[in-house]
Amino acid sequence: MSDSTMHGNKSKIRTGTNFTAYKSGARSEWPDHSLEIPGLGEIHGKHFLKDIVGFTGSEISINSLPPGAGMPFYHQHQENEEIYIFIQGRGQMQIDGEIIDVQEGSVVRIAPNGLRTWRNNSHEPLLYIVAQMRANSLRQYGFGDGVVSEKKVTWPN
Amino acid sequence: MSDSTMHGNKSKIRTGTNFTAYKSGARSEWPDHSLEIPGLGEIHGKHFLKDIVGFTGSEISINSLPPGAGMPFYHQHQENEEIYIFIQGRGQMQIDGEIIDVQEGSVVRIAPNGLRTWRNNSHEPLLYIVAQMRANSLRQYGFGDGVVSEKKVTWPN
Repeated sequence: MSDSTMHGNKSKIRTGTNFTAYKSGARSEWPDHSLEIPGLGEIHGKHFLKDIVGFTGSEISINSLPPGAGMPFYHQHQENEEIYIFIQGRGQMQIDGEIIDVQEGSVVRIAPNGLRTWRNNSHEPLLYIVAQMRANSLRQYGFGDGVVSEKKVTWPN
Repeated sequence: MSDSTMHGNKSKIRTGTNFTAYKSGARSEWPDHSLEIPGLGEIHGKHFLKDIVGFTGSEISINSLPPGAGMPFYHQHQENEEIYIFIQGRGQMQIDGEIIDVQEGSVVRIAPNGLRTWRNNSHEPLLYIVAQMRANSLRQYGFGDGVVSEKKVTWPN
């Protein structure tokens, strides 16, 4: 069980003028993450990335739930949309009382007001990514925001 | 090779008042996605999710690059920060001329101005998620934006 402190992550981080790269560990290591939430106790298998990697437009966590485990509470958000991307395994989300079966490849968008919880009701680990961004904050996107360079791509040998 | 049209995805989508859930397919199906980019031709293994799932704060794509493949161009962004999360395999990113080895679990944040490209220089498929959000758009996050309900969690039998 290794908490992710800035200190402990120093060797896993590389920073350049326009980037920060972080080694969060292989999927098999996701269950080892944990964090302390004031008033809610220790949450196992959740690893927030924003403050480590320096995101400015989102908070993103990588997550693992063992078989039979589930979030012990419902929650909503004030202004952030949440997106859940399921990477491995099977489980269920419950949003405003509706049950949604999720599995590897499921993507679920939840508006701030959605009352949500989720669980792993399978016999394998459930791995997923949760991203939160301010709802309606995106103005342009994809190739509409991108600028392709005319510079020819080269790689060192 | 199945392009992801809204029409073709209808059976994979479920919508509620505060959510949209989408089945994008297992990781093994990620290479089957493709899309047409005006002026750049067909891009294989890239699947944009925003317009399918209705994101309002981000564009997110799920991506697969076969061994030996790489992006044929450099690009920057106008106002969006990009985050790359590597899910499986090994490869390299190149940002402003710096080479970064990436692997399962690597997370890379790139500021809009970073000139970026990437490749799979390994012998296995490289799977990754790319998210773009407007830089500096997040005002509060994590449990600072969340509201935990006092309602007791129940699941149907």
